Amino acid sequence: MKNKILLCIADGVGDRPCEVLGWKTPLQYANTPHLDQLAKDGQSGIMDLYQAGTPVGTDLGHMCLFGYDLKDYPGRGPIEAFGESVELLTGDVAFRSNFGTVDEEIKVIDRRAGRIREGTKELAAALSGMQIEDVTILFKEATEHRAVLVLRGPGLSDAITDTDPKIEKVAVKQPEAKDGSEAAKKTARILLEFQKRSHEILSNHPVNKKRVEAGLFPANYILTRGAGSMPDIKKITQQLKFKACCVAEESTVLGVARLAGFSTMTDPSFTGNIDTNIDKKAELAVEALKENDFVALHFKAPDLMGHDNKPKGKVEAIEKFDELLGNVMNRLKNADSGNVIIALAADHSTPCERREHSGDPVPILISGKNIRKDHVEKYDEVSSAAGAICRIRGKDLFYTLLDYLEVTKKEGN
Amino acid sequence: MKNKILLCIADGVGDRPCEVLGWKTPLQYANTPHLDQLAKDGQSGIMDLYQAGTPVGTDLGHMCLFGYDLKDYPGRGPIEAFGESVELLTGDVAFRSNFGTVDEEIKVIDRRAGRIREGTKELAAALSGMQIEDVTILFKEATEHRAVLVLRGPGLSDAITDTDPKIEKVAVKQPEAKDGSEAAKKTARILLEFQKRSHEILSNHPVNKKRVEAGLFPANYILTRGAGSMPDIKKITQQLKFKACCVAEESTVLGVARLAGFSTMTDPSFTGNIDTNIDKKAELAVEALKENDFVALHFKAPDLMGHDNKPKGKVEAIEKFDELLGNVMNRLKNADSGNVIIALAADHSTPCERREHSGDPVPILISGKNIRKDHVEKYDEVSSAAGAICRIRGKDLFYTLLDYLEVTKKEGN
Repeated sequence: MKNKILLCIADGVGDRPCEVLGWKTPLQYANTPHLDQLAKDGQSGIMDLYQAGTPVGTDLGHMCLFGYDLKDYPGRGPIEAFGESVELLTGDVAFRSNFGTVDEEIKVIDRRAGRIREGTKELAAALSGMQIEDVTILFKEATEHRAVLVLRGPGLSDAITDTDPKIEKVAVKQPEAKDGSEAAKKTARILLEFQKRSHEILSNHPVNKKRVEAGLFPANYILTRGAGSMPDIKKITQQLKFKACCVAEESTVLGVARLAGFSTMTDPSFTGNIDTNIDKKAELAVEALKENDFVALHFKAPDLMGHDNKPKGKVEAIEKFDELLGNVMNRLKNADSGNVIIALAADHSTPCERREHSGDPVPILISGKNIRKDHVEKYDEVSSAAGAICRIRGKDLFYTLLDYLEVTKKEGN
Repeated sequence: MKNKILLCIADGVGDRPCEVLGWKTPLQYANTPHLDQLAKDGQSGIMDLYQAGTPVGTDLGHMCLFGYDLKDYPGRGPIEAFGESVELLTGDVAFRSNFGTVDEEIKVIDRRAGRIREGTKELAAALSGMQIEDVTILFKEATEHRAVLVLRGPGLSDAITDTDPKIEKVAVKQPEAKDGSEAAKKTARILLEFQKRSHEILSNHPVNKKRVEAGLFPANYILTRGAGSMPDIKKITQQLKFKACCVAEESTVLGVARLAGFSTMTDPSFTGNIDTNIDKKAELAVEALKENDFVALHFKAPDLMGHDNKPKGKVEAIEKFDELLGNVMNRLKNADSGNVIIALAADHSTPCERREHSGDPVPILISGKNIRKDHVEKYDEVSSAAGAICRIRGKDLFYTLLDYLEVTKKEGN
């Protein structure tokens, strides 16, 4: 029977012993019968996403989980662009953007244009497609005041300073070349021209005229940050010829998945927190396994609890993740999706005491009837470390999983 | 007492749980008292030959076992050349070749010249040494219709297409440059000229005239494939100044060993299957240890059983390997060969369910009275993973072993 892979990612799940949990980690403290069953039915290990002792962001962590390296990391702008389904080409320069409100002297009155929620689609459409010199502008609205700006054309660079001053009551910053290259100078010039022209278009746009009439801040200026250029990387699904899907809600995760060539599934009931609709998540994951060889299922809540230094909240989030896995395993019993190999992993540790991502390795496992079985019976940072996988990197886990799909390239003869 | 190394390689021994073995791996299922004794007397671990999740061929697997990297891999032609004891120099381009039979229109009648067995030495001698422009031709017969062709001269390239059409009743393919380089164009031109001249020489050779008279296909054409050029790599034995020998029967393994600067020992009673003469293998290995610092002993049968999806056959092959080790250990008791450290490894996994090489790590161990002893008491994929070596790469194992010989280079001061 054909192998399929379900990779379940508990965002930021790795932790350190917490005093309030009797110096256990949240994973050690939590009651996780389904995760532990998976440990019993397979092999465990620990994983450094990029390298030992180096914290990674959710974006790079997921890039490593999907087979990429730090050298492939395109910066935040391009990942946000993919998150908003803007398909970048090699050489494109992308920026995270805000609709903001400026006064006549181009001073920032509100960085988020009164947290504008409606009309951004029309405003974005009025800017997208603009041509400046030999560069085409792609512009797409995202949630609330957020948007993505892409410059597409020859000879561009991402060595461009942010124009968003990050605070209010000061002037918008001028885009500047970070190095002396012609490409950076050109990109700064194009961006400045875009900001001028877009300011004029936005100021006169009916959506903004109505906002002013209603006493709301007009979304009359595009503030940019996080310039990144799209590197020459291939979609891993095209390169190795397999079908993959990512079930998630966070645009960063969806963005990395799209960059890797995964299709995506999401649902308005996915909140990114502990109250997310796990039943729907399980349903979509099992549905995705019918059509795909590889499915990534993302669960965000443990990371939030780590950032908030809530060890007990993290325990609760982990028990919810366990419930999600139970739901998935139950549905798989009745599904006809080949031999589904389940892997557990995380994109990084987020220790409560640190309130931030850390370089601590994360526990992993690979479970299924044709998987080597070790003696580990529990899924947590310490139990997993004694398993037959030992200690590997994010990219290694991904290629190990792809090898069960028989899509890896044999080297030598 | 001086340390010596005996590295025993069970080809393709790594596997996955098999239903017919009660979901054990063949190594877990097999009765292996000698392998287990070695585990008790040393330290165990698992190994990725090149990197986690990447399957390797027998050739690259052995290159990693003998300290090389993927970047050193010269392609199949050169390894076959070394397998036939043709010593390549940097820049040589080697091809796997067949004696074939063509008609007057240079259409292939038989790709193997009626599986010719006799007279190939004379035919090869009539071609070897030919000079075309500034290139010298080396040509050597191998088993049956097989042969090795080497072009030696300045400015050659291995970016050359195969001339063997792989099927019969079609024309021989013209050698073509795969890229626009002058080196590839020159190589294609030389190869074509060699094929023309050799066709004429072979057609008029007494061996072939007799074959025609006897109603056999004449070996009148040289079909080529698998061009590879010899990279600028050093023989590891010369580089680190130690004496090594490989006891094996497979020409690929013998070829890699020669490339690495090992001497070789083989015997007509080595079959490459389960019926190979293990008593003779043990005898040669122990004899080789007298004169050498490092001896590699190769055993092929587990790989064949994996390719044939025969879990019980693989168990039998493993038990034969265990018997071989018992025989070796027994002989070593009475030999005066220094302190022999025995290591067990494999060149890759060949899981029965996959019928092909996989990227699953292989179990390894290093055993001897001066080797750190861990708590592992059995040699198999899971038990070994709990050992004190943890998880390393093929090259790491080789250098670890050489370090007991004290031939490794100390870095720093």
